[in-house]
Amino acid sequence: MSASLARKFSREGMRIALAARDTKKLSNLISEIDAVAYCCDTSDPNSVRDLFSSIHADIGDPEVVIFNASKRVRGEITEVDVDEVRDAILTTCYGGFLVGQEASKIMLKSGQGTIMFTGASAGVKGFAKSATFAMGKFGLRGLAQSMARELHPQNIHVVHVVVDGGIRSEEKSYSSVQTEDNFLLPDAIADTYYHLYKQHRSAWAWEIEVRPWVENF
Amino acid sequence: MSASLARKFSREGMRIALAARDTKKLSNLISEIDAVAYCCDTSDPNSVRDLFSSIHADIGDPEVVIFNASKRVRGEITEVDVDEVRDAILTTCYGGFLVGQEASKIMLKSGQGTIMFTGASAGVKGFAKSATFAMGKFGLRGLAQSMARELHPQNIHVVHVVVDGGIRSEEKSYSSVQTEDNFLLPDAIADTYYHLYKQHRSAWAWEIEVRPWVENF
Amino acid sequence: MSASLARKFSREGMRIALAARDTKKLSNLISEIDAVAYCCDTSDPNSVRDLFSSIHADIGDPEVVIFNASKRVRGEITEVDVDEVRDAILTTCYGGFLVGQEASKIMLKSGQGTIMFTGASAGVKGFAKSATFAMGKFGLRGLAQSMARELHPQNIHVVHVVVDGGIRSEEKSYSSVQTEDNFLLPDAIADTYYHLYKQHRSAWAWEIEVRPWVENF
Amino acid sequence: MSASLARKFSREGMRIALAARDTKKLSNLISEIDAVAYCCDTSDPNSVRDLFSSIHADIGDPEVVIFNASKRVRGEITEVDVDEVRDAILTTCYGGFLVGQEASKIMLKSGQGTIMFTGASAGVKGFAKSATFAMGKFGLRGLAQSMARELHPQNIHVVHVVVDGGIRSEEKSYSSVQTEDNFLLPDAIADTYYHLYKQHRSAWAWEIEVRPWVENF
Repeated sequence: MSASLARKFSREGMRIALAARDTKKLSNLISEIDAVAYCCDTSDPNSVRDLFSSIHADIGDPEVVIFNASKRVRGEITEVDVDEVRDAILTTCYGGFLVGQEASKIMLKSGQGTIMFTGASAGVKGFAKSATFAMGKFGLRGLAQSMARELHPQNIHVVHVVVDGGIRSEEKSYSSVQTEDNFLLPDAIADTYYHLYKQHRSAWAWEIEVRPWVENF
Repeated sequence: MSASLARKFSREGMRIALAARDTKKLSNLISEIDAVAYCCDTSDPNSVRDLFSSIHADIGDPEVVIFNASKRVRGEITEVDVDEVRDAILTTCYGGFLVGQEASKIMLKSGQGTIMFTGASAGVKGFAKSATFAMGKFGLRGLAQSMARELHPQNIHVVHVVVDGGIRSEEKSYSSVQTEDNFLLPDAIADTYYHLYKQHRSAWAWEIEVRPWVENF
Repeated sequence: MSASLARKFSREGMRIALAARDTKKLSNLISEIDAVAYCCDTSDPNSVRDLFSSIHADIGDPEVVIFNASKRVRGEITEVDVDEVRDAILTTCYGGFLVGQEASKIMLKSGQGTIMFTGASAGVKGFAKSATFAMGKFGLRGLAQSMARELHPQNIHVVHVVVDGGIRSEEKSYSSVQTEDNFLLPDAIADTYYHLYKQHRSAWAWEIEVRPWVENF
Repeated sequence: MSASLARKFSREGMRIALAARDTKKLSNLISEIDAVAYCCDTSDPNSVRDLFSSIHADIGDPEVVIFNASKRVRGEITEVDVDEVRDAILTTCYGGFLVGQEASKIMLKSGQGTIMFTGASAGVKGFAKSATFAMGKFGLRGLAQSMARELHPQNIHVVHVVVDGGIRSEEKSYSSVQTEDNFLLPDAIADTYYHLYKQHRSAWAWEIEVRPWVENF
C-alpha cells in the first residue's frame, strides 16, 4: 500500500520521501519514482525529528504526510508478551503522534498541509484475541480525531483512513478470482487518499472506511 | 446541492434525470444541462414507481441514483405537530426506502449500480429540539447501512454522505469571507459524491462525513 | 419482557398501567400484579393521547413510561412490501415519538420523570435483509438521543436500552442449557431498567446495551 | 471516585485491596473500611505482577478488579512534551492492559470474575488540545471492548464505564447549587459500577456512559 501511495502522489507531480525501519527493501521503488528514503523508528522521538530535518534539508518541507506504520500482536489476552504489547502500542499509536506532531509544526508555519493516518477496522471495533492491535489503532484514531478538531480550523487537513481487510499483493498468489476479490487493491486505496488530499476545505472529511465489496462488516 | 450534483455528473458525460415535488424551479438547470425532470412525491410508493418507469421509458435505467429529499421540523418535543412529524419521517426516511427499493430492483437486474443517500449530522447525533429530523435521518442512515451490507456483495455500491453544516448558496449574501467559510460549497460536495461513485469495488466506502474546515464538531 | 418489567416495577411498589393493541393476552398478568390495561395503537396520535388521559383519570400521571412496541419486516430490500414497511416504521419509531411526546408533556409539568425506550442491535447496526427494522430502530434511537439532550437538563431521564439477542420465554422449550444461554432472561433485563430508573441524576446514563454472555457481537 | 467504589463494595460485604503510586494519602480510607493497600506503578509489568501476588497472599484472589488509573496531558499537539505523552499513554492504556491481563489469568482459573475499566468522554470523542488523553482513553476502550468479546463467553464480565464530566469532591467548594450540579457524585457512579457487577450474565452490558443531568453532550 505504501508503494501505491508513493506512486500515485508521484504521478500527480510530487517529490516523494519514504521512511522505513529498513530501507533496503525500498530500492526498486526509490529508483522507479525517484524518491528519497530514510531510516526511521517511529516510536523514537529523536529518530522522527531527524527524519523531518533531513527531508527539510534534502527536498523541502512536506505538504502531505502519511503515517502507515503499525505493529500487531495476536493472541489471547493472557498469552501476549508484555514487552511486545508495549512495543506495538508505541509503534502504532505513539509513533503516529510523533509523526503528527512534527508534521503539524511544519504545516502550522506554512499555513497549510494534509496529514493522513492509516487505520484499521481494529481501531473501530475491538476483536477478541486482538487487544494489542485494538489499543494501538483505537489510540491512533483518537489522535487523528483530536488533531482534526484542533487543526482543521488552522487549515491543516487531518484524515483517518480505515482500511478494512487484507491488501492484495503481487507477491501472493490467489487460488481464484473469488479469493482475489476478498482483498483491497492498493492502487484503489491510493485513489481515495488522493481524493481526500484534493478535497476543497469547505467540505473536508476527517475519516473514511474502505473495504472490498464482498467483505463482511 | 442537487444542482451541483447534476452539473458534475452531467459534465462527466451522463444524462441527468431530476425529480422534485415541484419542477418549475428547475427550468434553468434543465436547459443548462439538458436534463429531464419529473414531479415526484418520495413518500408515495406509486409516485416513486412512476418516476422510475418514466425514466426507463425516456432515457433508460439509471446507473447512479442520488436521494436528497428531506423534511425537518424544529421545535421542542412537546410542541411539534404530530402530522408534520409523521410527514417528515415519511419524506426523509420512508422516501429513501422507496427510492432505494426501486433503484435496487433495476440495478440487481443489470448487475451493477450506485445508490447514494444524503444524510446529515442529525443522522449521527440526536440534537435537542431536533427529534423529528433525528428520526428521519437516523432512519435513513440505518437504511443505507443495511442496504450496503446487503447489496455490496451483489456489486451495487450504497453510499451515505453526511453533510454537516449549511450549504453555501448564490442567492444568499454573506457578511464576510469568515461567514462564507462556515458553509459547504455544493460543488466541493459533488466532487466527493463523484469520487465515491468512481471508487473501485475492491475499496468501497459506504459512508463519509463532509464539513467546512472551520466547523465545530 | 414487558411482563418482567411490569412485575419488577410492581414489586418495587408502583401501580402499573399496561397498553397493547390487544389486551386479552394480558389477563393473567393484570390479575397477578393488579394492573390496569388499555388498548392502544402506538402509531395513532389519538389513541396515544386517549391512553394517557385514561391513565391520568384512573391511576394518576405516570412517573415512568416504557415504550416497548415494535414491528419488524424481514426480507430482501427488493422484496419487502411497501405498506408493511410503512406500518413498521410508524409503529416502531413514530409510535415511540407519540408516546414520548405525551410522557414529556406530563413530566415537564410535574418537573420529573423517566422515559425508557427499548431498542435493538438493529438500531445500532444495519443488517442485511433488515432495512425495515433498521429504519425503525435507528429512528427510535435518534429520538431517544435527541430527547435525552433536550430533557435531561429539565430533570427528565430518557433512556435507550439496546436489547441484543432473543429473549428467553417460558413458552419455548430449549434443546439444552447451552441453547438457553443464547437468550436474555427478561427478569435480568428488568433489573437493569430498574437500576437506570433509580440512577441519581448526577450520574445518568442515556443508553446501555445488554446481551447474553455467549452472544457474538 | 476510587474511595466511593471502595466504600460501596466494602458495604456490600467484600474485602477491599487498594493500589496507588503513593498509598500515604489512603490511610483514612484504609482504616475506615479495613482495606489493604499496595504501592503500584500500573505501567510497570513487574509492579503489576507483584501487586496481584501480594493480594493473593494477603486476602486471596479478587472477584472484581477495577482499573481507575490515568494520566492526562493537555496542550496543543505541537506543544506537548514527548516524554510526558509517552508516560501518559503507558499509564492510561498499557497500564489497563497489564492489570487486565493479570486479572484475566486469575479469573480464567476460577472460572468467573468482573473487570471494570474507568473511561472518559475523551475515549469516545477526540477533543482539540487533548490528543494525549484521547490516545490513552481510546486505547483503553479498545482494550476493554476486545477483552469483552474474548472473555464474556468464558464467564468473565468486562465493563467500560465512560465517566463524562468532573467528579464532585468534598475538598472543593462550589459557588452555588447550580455549579455543584455540573459534577458527578462519586457515590452515584459507584452505584452503577455495583449494578453492572451484579448483572446476570444473560444480560450483560459491556459499556455505559454516566454524566450529570445538566451536562452538555
